[in-house]
This record gives sequence, structure tokens and C-alpha cells, in this order.
Amino acid sequence: MILVMRQGCSQEEVTNAEVRLKEIGLTPHTLFGVERTVIAAIGDERRTSVDELSQIPGVDNVMPILAPYKLASRESQPIPSTFDIGGADSPCGGKSKAVTFGGKSIPIIAGPCAVEGRSQILEAAHAVKEAGAVALRAGAFKPRTSPYQFQGLAEEGLSYLAEAREATGLPIVTEVLAPADVPLVAKYADVLQIGTRNMQNFLLLRACGAVKTPVLLKRGMSASLEEHLLAAEYILSGGNPRVMLCERGIRTFESYVRNTFALALVPALKEKTHLPILADPSHGTGVRTLVPAMTRASIAAGADGILIEVHPNPEKALTDGAQTISVKDFAKLVNECRAIAEAIGRTV
Amino acid sequence: MILVMRQGCSQEEVTNAEVRLKEIGLTPHTLFGVERTVIAAIGDERRTSVDELSQIPGVDNVMPILAPYKLASRESQPIPSTFDIGGADSPCGGKSKAVTFGGKSIPIIAGPCAVEGRSQILEAAHAVKEAGAVALRAGAFKPRTSPYQFQGLAEEGLSYLAEAREATGLPIVTEVLAPADVPLVAKYADVLQIGTRNMQNFLLLRACGAVKTPVLLKRGMSASLEEHLLAAEYILSGGNPRVMLCERGIRTFESYVRNTFALALVPALKEKTHLPILADPSHGTGVRTLVPAMTRASIAAGADGILIEVHPNPEKALTDGAQTISVKDFAKLVNECRAIAEAIGRTV
Amino acid sequence: MILVMRQGCSQEEVTNAEVRLKEIGLTPHTLFGVERTVIAAIGDERRTSVDELSQIPGVDNVMPILAPYKLASRESQPIPSTFDIGGADSPCGGKSKAVTFGGKSIPIIAGPCAVEGRSQILEAAHAVKEAGAVALRAGAFKPRTSPYQFQGLAEEGLSYLAEAREATGLPIVTEVLAPADVPLVAKYADVLQIGTRNMQNFLLLRACGAVKTPVLLKRGMSASLEEHLLAAEYILSGGNPRVMLCERGIRTFESYVRNTFALALVPALKEKTHLPILADPSHGTGVRTLVPAMTRASIAAGADGILIEVHPNPEKALTDGAQTISVKDFAKLVNECRAIAEAIGRTV
Amino acid sequence: MILVMRQGCSQEEVTNAEVRLKEIGLTPHTLFGVERTVIAAIGDERRTSVDELSQIPGVDNVMPILAPYKLASRESQPIPSTFDIGGADSPCGGKSKAVTFGGKSIPIIAGPCAVEGRSQILEAAHAVKEAGAVALRAGAFKPRTSPYQFQGLAEEGLSYLAEAREATGLPIVTEVLAPADVPLVAKYADVLQIGTRNMQNFLLLRACGAVKTPVLLKRGMSASLEEHLLAAEYILSGGNPRVMLCERGIRTFESYVRNTFALALVPALKEKTHLPILADPSHGTGVRTLVPAMTRASIAAGADGILIEVHPNPEKALTDGAQTISVKDFAKLVNECRAIAEAIGRTV
Repeated sequence: MILVMRQGCSQEEVTNAEVRLKEIGLTPHTLFGVERTVIAAIGDERRTSVDELSQIPGVDNVMPILAPYKLASRESQPIPSTFDIGGADSPCGGKSKAVTFGGKSIPIIAGPCAVEGRSQILEAAHAVKEAGAVALRAGAFKPRTSPYQFQGLAEEGLSYLAEAREATGLPIVTEVLAPADVPLVAKYADVLQIGTRNMQNFLLLRACGAVKTPVLLKRGMSASLEEHLLAAEYILSGGNPRVMLCERGIRTFESYVRNTFALALVPALKEKTHLPILADPSHGTGVRTLVPAMTRASIAAGADGILIEVHPNPEKALTDGAQTISVKDFAKLVNECRAIAEAIGRTV
Repeated sequence: MILVMRQGCSQEEVTNAEVRLKEIGLTPHTLFGVERTVIAAIGDERRTSVDELSQIPGVDNVMPILAPYKLASRESQPIPSTFDIGGADSPCGGKSKAVTFGGKSIPIIAGPCAVEGRSQILEAAHAVKEAGAVALRAGAFKPRTSPYQFQGLAEEGLSYLAEAREATGLPIVTEVLAPADVPLVAKYADVLQIGTRNMQNFLLLRACGAVKTPVLLKRGMSASLEEHLLAAEYILSGGNPRVMLCERGIRTFESYVRNTFALALVPALKEKTHLPILADPSHGTGVRTLVPAMTRASIAAGADGILIEVHPNPEKALTDGAQTISVKDFAKLVNECRAIAEAIGRTV
Repeated sequence: MILVMRQGCSQEEVTNAEVRLKEIGLTPHTLFGVERTVIAAIGDERRTSVDELSQIPGVDNVMPILAPYKLASRESQPIPSTFDIGGADSPCGGKSKAVTFGGKSIPIIAGPCAVEGRSQILEAAHAVKEAGAVALRAGAFKPRTSPYQFQGLAEEGLSYLAEAREATGLPIVTEVLAPADVPLVAKYADVLQIGTRNMQNFLLLRACGAVKTPVLLKRGMSASLEEHLLAAEYILSGGNPRVMLCERGIRTFESYVRNTFALALVPALKEKTHLPILADPSHGTGVRTLVPAMTRASIAAGADGILIEVHPNPEKALTDGAQTISVKDFAKLVNECRAIAEAIGRTV
Repeated sequence: MILVMRQGCSQEEVTNAEVRLKEIGLTPHTLFGVERTVIAAIGDERRTSVDELSQIPGVDNVMPILAPYKLASRESQPIPSTFDIGGADSPCGGKSKAVTFGGKSIPIIAGPCAVEGRSQILEAAHAVKEAGAVALRAGAFKPRTSPYQFQGLAEEGLSYLAEAREATGLPIVTEVLAPADVPLVAKYADVLQIGTRNMQNFLLLRACGAVKTPVLLKRGMSASLEEHLLAAEYILSGGNPRVMLCERGIRTFESYVRNTFALALVPALKEKTHLPILADPSHGTGVRTLVPAMTRASIAAGADGILIEVHPNPEKALTDGAQTISVKDFAKLVNECRAIAEAIGRTV
């Protein structure tokens, strides 16, 4: 940590700050400048916080040297993480074809926003598989802004998803909303999805850290890069190493889109962490006509996977219709993505 | 709802849209303009959504006429809600002096960010009471950005809060993080606080709607006014009428503060809802030296209550020290607030 | 325009609103609903504004039907605009190879942030040409946040740019800061660049509308899509049809980048306007290591041109060093862009 | 400046960085930590920039110790600046009653958004004076989002303002849009206003630094606190010491207001600078019904002056009607402000 002291602080304040730093286990190195005194505190700064050190009398500003996350960092693991979801060993016991994340290939996870019924999800699963998806996404528990909107089919929806997996061999990615629901959802899902509104639901993160099911952790809609990695750190430090991060758009002043797709997070995260980084251009924009361009852009920007909303009949989708594309448009888009992946030496 | 059709849409598309609107239960009135056709759909538009109607072929844009929330709206209840917290009838059974929210008087809820121990919370409770607070706030369950930070004392902390209530008569306001914890926290608390990260934790909102304990619902750090009211609607529609809303700062590009204190939300909410509106200048700014000015501003802007972080020894606070003021500064501030409240015809 | 009247508004207010609309030249169609009265006002709504109509007593909300810009819109010109910059007919009279914008080919404009000296800009011009750029960018007038920073070489810098054009045949793109400087800069430049801080410098926009030199109009760092198009409308309505728009990043809460690169603006603008849409991944991110990924993404998202900062010695750049890439990295990136352009059926 | 070196940087890189710092005139103090090497560079860091130092090979992160502005800082002048506008010595030569800014009294500057005609501005001037305003505001040059909107009366408007000053003795505050217009506007105005869109129009700032007329500098709608102070530094370093800063709302995701009124900027700026800090609740919210509450809040937050839009007939205002209050509401508000000012030991 670097402590910049206030202009004109007293020698007593400097001495006191040095004592406090030593108590915390850091070694202070004090530099008396013309205008300001600076104390560099060397050691394991994760034992304290910017907030704590800012309270020391005479301190004007505190700057960290190290990132506050550890297990998620490139420094702790310089090589990208690669792992499978689904397959014979999937913790849920369902039978699906394993899909590798973090490698040269870029898996596409597709499906409707919500499980709306048995035939809808079966139809969707077959259609997205045929078009090129390697995993199926759909929500059985839906976080909805209004209490008067459709809230999902709950366990009934999970059972339809399991049926869709049996029918197609696609691993299942589905959202879990509460810590208490983690065991139930983990019984059916190959990947537990944590949505944008729950990125800082720390009890949910802990609950997902305590199971063996891989986790897809979406960025909170106003979360910083560091907060996203600290959320992953909750899961990793609980003992679950299979975490994927996903950019899904942030909230800004822009009003022609539902969210601003902050795609530079993808290469930025890849500099900081070894975890696979996915992109969700459906939520990333919230506008159907922009999804194909931003999916192509996601591949070009280096995403390790795509999460995309596809519905057999987008116009009748119960949720998120405005950002959902048709099966036909999806099939065309997969081919475009293949061409772009090839251009950058990867595959879809 | 107002549907603006795309330029050059066909007569068939217009007819189809009219049919769909009737199916939903709305009455279409179609206006053929020079450049665009507009369909005004009259009726109970909460049966549908902007998203759903946007999917109808030929529709370019959909605009709602009514607010999507009902029970929270001024239209459903034109007179401000007034209710007590604490007191002899508090659902938790604890003994405290009742405090009225929503009236002419502006209650101040003060206390440390976290319960750090028995003596700390007892000392804080006595101190803030003496300085003018009428309720005690402190967290036993702490949502922390990093898994390596202090996470709160949990039930042990709740029991100290109860002891502080016995000792001072101050009702207790404390945060609950998960639906499963609601019964436990409600056993001790006079008010359940839902924090900014949980404003759209819909299962938690439902759980708080199912109990009789009043709820203090903070604004999400990137939530719109409408989303805040829809979150309240979850609780109200569950049968719990005692909901207070609280502005606590939003996330913007500003970096000299932890949060941007969007104080205009206070008068704006008061136009839309009958619920009491509080302000939290501690989280609202995140900067201790700005708290007094923004507390005074909150009173002047019409807040119905103040939530503020006060610690017997802010420099040693385990959490949120940077935004916590001392007991001495708090006592001075309460007097300033009294003068401003008087200037606008209210009392503190 | 659609006027939604306040709940419980009087018949007199409705009648008065109808009269006012007729005065403005719009035809009112009034619909009396269960909860609200709605007036659809049909006609040329650009004669008025949302703001003006909101003032009519009894009006709760006003929603426009048409976009407020005309010449920039797809509705006024459904086919994409294609035009040349530079070449034998360049208004500045300089000799360069013409470059076409708005077609299948995606021109890359490259160069240092600022003209720092004669040899620096000549070296840069030769280097970027060799690596694949077809136009040269560099600023002679630099808008700098601090008065103590390097402010550019002014006309001396312009003359070096002209010399670089003579030497390489690359058309020159350079920024103009004040209306009074437009004639001077237009004497040297093939394209007048209007920077992000001047997107709403309306007198500058008008001055650029009065000349024949093509204009590259960057998005303001907190401008909406509509404001960007209205800024273009200032230039177009002045009689200058050769306007290119450029996304260069917006200001959000994100702090790991200098700007949030809102790349979805590219396909979104292309739906609304016929003008060529460029992307500037250097300012778009502000971080050198993110530039290659976001340049590739820009091509994949459909940008009609790329503006990028390249310096012979980025570490010694007087301005914007943190986001400037080396000539070697640029050459590699151009090849990657070619592969991606080919994958989507275009060329670089 | 503090330079944090990359993990695993070489001794050669450290030595090279030390050499570069000495070349710039800073004294390096290097600390070799367990995980990172840190170089504290002591001396006048305004000779360089974070950007420049970030380019040194091996540097991971650079943090400034000092603020980049000097003349505007509290460190250069610890006592608040106090100065007059208008009066017998006003540079424009007009006759008005001088108004002091920066003292105990809080002047209110009121008037319509735009000068719409002679009788309108005369009527407005008399009305706001009677209600308690001590200076008149109105624009003769209007920056408008659309080229099809009313753009102001230009010099004709300025002459009406001068006439209003003669009639009422109120000093005139009016906006200037271009460097070339500064001499003209300074002939009529007691205070030159620089609007939000021009806060970083550096040539305009320089032109205003070269005259003797006091300047009211509004915050850019996405400007940081530091950028606001650096903009003031342009004027101050040009030799014009009479600069007032004004918070007028920033652009965020909030959509129920035109701007988010970031009122905490007022006390935050007062910690950093000696210049008077004003608040503009009209633009700060953009919503007429929120203006009274936020004006009161501005006084309570410590603003040194208020800028507010008042129109004899707000419903017919040509510009900004939605945020303009009536003379009657203004008179009532001035009284409320007086009571609040008194409560905090100041006067209006």
C-alpha cells in the first residue's frame, strides 16, 4: 500500500502511521518530499484495506499495489484455465457431450430466455443443436423486474431441461437465484448460472463455491472489473475451480440499447485472470437487430464462448423477446462466427 | 400502450396488431398519419409489457401510458403513508419506543456499519441516542466485496442488537441477506433492511413481503426510479404494507466520491409514491467529510428520515470507516438538521 | 407527437391542448381511456418539441413519433452514402490518393495523436502507409485537459502534415477546434476532424457545414445516438454532405479503461443513418493492450473505417502514449483486420 | 508520482526508470518489495504526466501525489476567494449594483433560459429582482441540440440585457459560445458564462482568461471534479482571477430527470479550491417540480450562489420550459432559501 500524507501533517502523525502499519504486519518506508510525505508499506497488503488505512490520522490518500483477488489472478496461475462442462462426469449425473471451455474452440451456448413448457424447450434444444450450439441455456427461475410478470416454471422447468439434455446430448446451463436452491438446481444443471443481479449475492456465491458444478458468473450491471473478479474469488476460495466469467452489458446513459455492451472487458479480463471469459451479446445489447454484429465482434475480441438467446418463435417469447433471435438467424450467425474464428486462428 | 408502426408498414400488419391487442384485452384505436401509423391501445396495460408488444410484426416502438407498479403508486393511494416501527407492537416482541415514519417529524436512524462486538454496539447505541437518534442501525450480516473481509457476527450480532434495544429503547434496523434468513432476522429486528445489492433479489423481496416486520428498501446502485418502486411492489403485493424507500447513491463516472448521491430522487419519488422516503448520506457519498453537508441537504430536499453511519471510534471501524462520522460530529449535525427542519416546517 | 394527459385532467385542459396543437400545425386525435386521456398529434412534429408540448397544462408526458433529424436519417436516404476523401479534387488542393468511405472496403486512417515535429510526422506517415493505412491522422491543434500540457504545433504542424501528404500520397485527417480556424485548417486538410469535446460546439459544426471539406465527427463522450445524429444534421443542413461519424468511447463508471467502447453504436447508427460509421479503438479504450482486440471487433461489428493511433516510438509520444501502438504492432493488426474483413465479405 | 513496476520486472528496467525520472527532474526512491518494486518520484510532478510515465518500460501503474491544478487549489490559496461582479467597476461599463460572491451571503442569479425579446427580458428582470434575485441571467447565444431549434437573438439579445440592467440595476450573466465572440459579449455582460458543452472548449477558456470580466464556469455534463478545476486553471493561468464554478447536473443512467444533480460536488469542490461554488438546480434536474426541493438542498449543502431559471410565463418559454419555474414560485422559494440560509448561519 502507498500512503500519501496530508500536506503539513505532523511528525507525530507520520510516526503513528508507521506504528499502525507495523501492527498490521507491513513494513513502512517513509519518503519526505518537498510538498508531501509518502509512506510505502511493503508486505501482504490483503491483510488490510484501503478503507482501513485511510482512517489513520494524517493520511490523505491510500493506493493499493496488489490486486485484492488472488486465486482468480494471472499472477497465481499464468496459464489459462481449461475445463469441461457436461459429459460423463457431470456432477448432475445427466448424460451429455462434454464441452471444453478455455481452449482454442469457442463454444456457443444457445436457447430461449425461459423454459416456457416441455415442447418449447425440446423444440428449442433440437433447433439450436442443429444450428451449431453445443450447450443449451434457459431459465427455470426467472428474476423479473415486476412481481406481475412470468416468474418461471421452477423445478418443473428444470425437469424439462433434463429431458432436453437426454434428447439432444447438450449440457444444460441454467440460473440459480438463492443459496437454498443451489442443491436443487445442481441436481439438474451442468452449469449453474449466476445472473447479473446476483453477482454480489455473496451467500449465493458461497453456496456455489461449495458444490462441484461449474459456474457461469455474469458481470453485475454496474460492477467493476475488480468486483467481478472478487465475486469469482468467493466461488474459487470455496473450493470450486470451474468458474467462467461473462460480460453481459452494463448500465450507462445510453438509451437506444437496453445495456451498453462493454466488450473491451473481454480482453481486459483475459489480462488479469486465467478463467475463461464469455460474452452475451443478447443481454449485452438488449436489441435483436444488434445481436448478430455484436456476436461477431465478441468472437473477434477474443471471447472464449458465446451465450445467446434463441427462440423457435421470438415474437411469442414470454420473456426477453426484444433481444431474442430466431433459429434461422442463429444458424446464419453461427456460420459467420465460424469464419471469424478461423480468421483469428480459432474454431467455433 | 402506444404502438408506433414502422414507416411503410402494411395494412395487414396493422390489422394483425389490432387483433393481437384485442386478444390481450386492450382496445386499439388506430390513427393513420402522414409518415407513421399509430395505434393507441386503451385498457389495463399491466396485462402485457412493452417487450411483448414490441414483438408484433411491423411495430417500431411501444410506449406505456401507465406506471407498471400499482400498490406503491400515488394513484392508488394519494395520501402519504404513515406508520410506526418498534414500540410495544413490534413483530419481534422487543421493547422499544415507537418511531413514526411518513409524518412531519424526520427520524434519524444512526449507528455503526457493522456490529463488531457487544461493548461496541452498546456504546454506540447509548451515544447515538444521547445525540438525538431515535433508532439504531448496524449490520450483523455484512455483504462484502471480497471474501477475505470481515463478514459480520451473524446471530451473535443480532443478539447484541437486541441487548442494545433493551438498554436504550431504540428500535433496531438491520440488514437481511437471504430469503432463508428472514425468519431469524425478524426475530430480533424492528426493521428489516434490504441493501443496495439485494434491491432486485426478488426471492428476498418476496420473503420480506410475507412477514409483518417493516422493511427499509435501499435503492440499487444502478436502479431506476421505476425499478425501485417495482421492488417495493414485490413486498407490498406480498401483504406487507410498511415499506420505506431509501436513496443511498448510485454508480456513475464520478471518482472523487464512492457513489453519486442522487438526492433529487427524494422529491421525485415523493411525487410517484405514498411510501416514506429516506436518505442515506453515508453511503450516498462514501466520504466522511461530505456527510454533514449532504445530511443537511437531505433534510432540505424533503427526506422523511435519515440513515447515517456513526461509530464511537470511526478510525478503528472494521467496515465503512471512510464514510463514518464520530459521535461528536453526529451530535453537532443533529442540531444543524433540527434548524433546517424547522426552516421548512418540520421537526427532527 | 403523443400527449398523455394527467390522470383526472379536466375537459377544458383537453380542449385547450387540442387548440394549441392546431396552432402549431398538428392534427389532434383524442382518445378517452379508462385511466388516462391520450392525444395523438399527427403532422410534421419537427415544428415543435417534446419540451414545448410538455408545458401545455394537463399534459403528463409527451412522446415523439419521428426522429428529430432529417437529412441524416435513413428515411430521407435509404441507401448508404458513399464518397471520397482526398484525391485530385480535394478542396484543399493537396495531391493524394482518393479514399472511398461507405463502400465495401474498410479504410484505415492511422498516425500519431499529435504532430510533434517534421521528422516525426514524415516517419510516421511512411510507416503507416507501408503497414497498410490509406490516410494519415495527427493533430496540430490539441485539446488538452491541463493548460500546462503540450497544446500542439498549430499551423506549423499543418504544414508538416501537408508535406507528409506530398511525400506519401496519404490524405490528411486533422482536428479543428474553433469556428475561426476552419478556413485555415481546410487549407491543409483533406478531412476536418471534430473531436469528442466539440461534438456539440454548434458554431464549429456550422462553420464545417459551410465548407466543402469532408468532416469526421466523433461522438461526444456522453452524447446519445440522437445527439450525435443531430450534430451531423448541423453540418448536413449547412450544405456539406460528406460527413462521417465515429464512435470513440463514452464515459461510464468503468475505471480499468479510459473510456467504455460502446461498439454497438456502430450497427445501431447504421440502422438510423446513411452516413459512413467509423470506429476509433484507440480512444475507444484508452489502453494500448486492448486496441488490437477492439480493432478486430470493430471490423467484425461492421465499421466502415478505422481511426487508430500509431507512433514510431509510442513510449516517447508527447500525447496519448498510453493508447498508441507501435508501427510493428499496427502492421500485424492490419493483417488480422484483412482476415476478418474477408470473413464478413469486405476488404481492408 | 508513485510508479508501481510490473511483477518480475528486470533490474535493468528499474534502473532505466530511475534515469528517466531524473531526466524529468524528479528524485527516485526505489523500494524493493516481496511481490512488487515501487519507485516514489519526489519533486514537481506537474512537469510530467501519469500518461508519460506509464510509457516507461516495466511500469505497471502510476499514481500522482499532487493535484494537476495549482492556481485553483486550496494549497495555493487556503482562504476562500471573495470578489464582486457588476458594480461601478464592472469591465463592461454598465451600471449595476455590485454583488459579492464567496462570502457569507448567497446571491441568487435568476432569469429566463433565453432572451426572447425586449419586453420579455425587461418583465423578467423586474420580476426576479422584486422576488429577491440580485443578478439577471439569460442567454443571447443558445447552444441547441437541433439545428432546427431557436438559436438565440445574438447581439440584439445582449442589448436588451443591457437595457434590463439599466432598468433594474441587476448585473448581467450571459453565455458566450466561441472565442471570437468574447470581446462582443464582454462589452455587455458583467459575467461571462461558459456552459456545460464548452467546459472543455479550451480556446474559449483561454479567451475568457484574457479579459477582465468574471467568469461563471459550469461543469461539463460528464466532467470529473479534476477536469472542472483544470478548466478553471486555464482561465486563472491566463490572468483572470474571478472564476466561479457551478454544478449543473451530470449525465447518468437516470431517466426520470434530464440530469443527475450531483450536489456533493459542492462541498467536495470547496475542500479542493478557494473559488466560489454555485449550484444550478434548474439544469441540475431538468424537471420543474424538483427545482424547489433541490434549490433548498443546494443552500443547505453550502452553495455560494444559486443560478435558476425563472420565466414570466414558463409554459410559453421558447427554451427549457420544462425546468423553468414561474415568478410566483420563485418568490416563494427565495423565502424558503432565506430560512435555510439562516439555519446554517448565512444569508440570501
